[in-house]
Amino acid sequence: MKIALLGHGTVGSGVYELIMKNRPRFKEIYGKELNVERIMVNHPENYKHLPYYELFSNNFEDFKELSFDVAIESIGGIEPAFQYVSYFLSKGIPVITSNKDLIAEKGNLLTALALKNNTSIRYEASVGGGIPILKTLEENLAGDQILEIAGIVNGTTNYILTKMNNESLSYNTALLMAQNLGFAETDPTSDVEGLDSVRKIAILTKLGLNIDVDWKSIPVEGITQIDAEDIVFFNQELLNIKLIGITKVIRDGFYCSVRPVLVSKSSKFASIDNEFNAVRVHGEAVGELMFIGKGAGQMATATSVLGDLVDLMLNTKIRVSKKLENRSLVKLFPDKSNWIVKLAGVSSNDINEEHVSVSEETHFMKLTDINEENLIDKLNKLSSQLNCDYKYYLIYE
Amino acid sequence: MKIALLGHGTVGSGVYELIMKNRPRFKEIYGKELNVERIMVNHPENYKHLPYYELFSNNFEDFKELSFDVAIESIGGIEPAFQYVSYFLSKGIPVITSNKDLIAEKGNLLTALALKNNTSIRYEASVGGGIPILKTLEENLAGDQILEIAGIVNGTTNYILTKMNNESLSYNTALLMAQNLGFAETDPTSDVEGLDSVRKIAILTKLGLNIDVDWKSIPVEGITQIDAEDIVFFNQELLNIKLIGITKVIRDGFYCSVRPVLVSKSSKFASIDNEFNAVRVHGEAVGELMFIGKGAGQMATATSVLGDLVDLMLNTKIRVSKKLENRSLVKLFPDKSNWIVKLAGVSSNDINEEHVSVSEETHFMKLTDINEENLIDKLNKLSSQLNCDYKYYLIYE
Repeated sequence: MKIALLGHGTVGSGVYELIMKNRPRFKEIYGKELNVERIMVNHPENYKHLPYYELFSNNFEDFKELSFDVAIESIGGIEPAFQYVSYFLSKGIPVITSNKDLIAEKGNLLTALALKNNTSIRYEASVGGGIPILKTLEENLAGDQILEIAGIVNGTTNYILTKMNNESLSYNTALLMAQNLGFAETDPTSDVEGLDSVRKIAILTKLGLNIDVDWKSIPVEGITQIDAEDIVFFNQELLNIKLIGITKVIRDGFYCSVRPVLVSKSSKFASIDNEFNAVRVHGEAVGELMFIGKGAGQMATATSVLGDLVDLMLNTKIRVSKKLENRSLVKLFPDKSNWIVKLAGVSSNDINEEHVSVSEETHFMKLTDINEENLIDKLNKLSSQLNCDYKYYLIYE
Repeated sequence: MKIALLGHGTVGSGVYELIMKNRPRFKEIYGKELNVERIMVNHPENYKHLPYYELFSNNFEDFKELSFDVAIESIGGIEPAFQYVSYFLSKGIPVITSNKDLIAEKGNLLTALALKNNTSIRYEASVGGGIPILKTLEENLAGDQILEIAGIVNGTTNYILTKMNNESLSYNTALLMAQNLGFAETDPTSDVEGLDSVRKIAILTKLGLNIDVDWKSIPVEGITQIDAEDIVFFNQELLNIKLIGITKVIRDGFYCSVRPVLVSKSSKFASIDNEFNAVRVHGEAVGELMFIGKGAGQMATATSVLGDLVDLMLNTKIRVSKKLENRSLVKLFPDKSNWIVKLAGVSSNDINEEHVSVSEETHFMKLTDINEENLIDKLNKLSSQLNCDYKYYLIYE
């Protein structure tokens, strides 16, 4: 199989390494020889030290003159990845990508383009790194009706929250720690504001729930507003805070969000520590399934790319095009649930509700068995009556 | 697709139900119509009340006169399942089975027979019920080297141990509870003695580690010898006891066992409660992955069968035959680890080691950083010196 490799950063170089490592074994098992024929990078001159330096090019015209059996894209971002991927698909060449931005933004378009050209685009590595969740949804669970997917799908924020939960660190200290260890980028916005997570939950909504959604329409709340004093209280209540993407079918539409939620310390989600990701799927027939693994990292992500490549070696099956449903997106948690509410700037004497005061002006209450819409109504009344601020967290399990 | 359904018990009837439910949708998506053409049962007359009664037969000759595109076997046990499955494979008809006994006992033979006849045998439902673990190992992780697999692969024993861990029930009380709720059979031997788990760990060893193993050669210890007083002590140490199958590559061979082991209460395995199963895979490239779900149950198991069926609809890919390696089976845990040891029938005054006495004659010690072989040596010396009995548990994580 002649391979075009687009990108040679963390993921791309990991993919190259795994391909080289598996070549003899794959040839024996699948009877196919993997050959990386050309590698696209911005600065080929940076790779002069590599024995396969002659494969590098920064000119896409060099790719058009060769024939390929598959293109692997790990450049990241929308352009020029979109342009390159479109080219290959339009020529009927299957594409494997690890690029969640591209899939979240242009996935529908690219899937349609692949189908039109009798080929396929695969992107297992774009969600959950090494966790095999997309193919599982598409194939293993094809006979089931998926009702809900919830996941910790960003390792950076999960690392930060783990430190905050376990060591009562402030957000800023935990972020610094994550940056020093390479788990967070210098500009962590995309991770900590939930923008990375929301793209992934959009992909899971399309593939698992078969519902079309624009990731930009999904309500998203990051982790920057979580106070250390909140965590102290959560710990007393045996709750951990996690950034969780939730997408679920409801009667008249679907609910989808990324938000910090509270989970019981004995729950499965609470045990997902540090850079690990976890995706929980609830199917009508299969019940609850959970998939845990490293959500990022060079070799974990490269393994998912190789999985897609193995599928291509095993067969030339064409991804089927399921028409995505249009359903209205509900932005408030629709089910009755329990909540932790924080009131700030009010004396405890003025509060009639049962509450725990952690300082003269800061008080926590637990409100039970109420949906988010009614909760907000109630809190709006309370805050205007008491002239105070509030903040609240969903207790998710 | 013309389907022969063998068996109409819990799994078989669930498969029938899911096939009927998905028929219109599958036709739309995959362009194939699923038709169950004949159903094998012992007593067709028991199904007179069903609208599809005319499909039932207890005569295998009735199957030989029809043509099928796939046979689904959920009879269970070795015979006559083996005979029927062999027939279909020898005719080049792919087989899907949920029968772990059959695969553990005759898997190599049937795989070879399938390959010879250019067809395939698939058995996702045979391990972990609804958990999509086998295809994940075969396809998604094909580009990785699997180093270790560990799993809670029996829901009955996990239910019993959950009750023992959480509610300090005795084994007998917890078993009775499981039986009353239908989680344990009247004769629970196969589950509680670990015989069900050991078959599954053998299948995982072959498929994941690519090592040939006869399930009957794997050391297995069930849960019947776990005392309630042991659990009280484990709880104090923040440990839960779990029945875990472990299979791992080591330098000169591989280690494989099913045994009760101790895990930290904050570990992922400790959070696997009641009838849930969990399989943890450690790959060289992908790192740690864990898959959690219901290990049994009608619809969960049927979902896995449907997943295999979808694969057949998507393509006619032939399973590749990887030659299994022969490696020597090491029966004692090879790595240095920590252990809880119980000494019985000796006065605490006679014990020099650091220990906790829970009664005049019963004492627990923690021995650290020692492998099982050296541990046994040490305990043999100790017990002959003190003239007492001992028992020990691996602390696995």
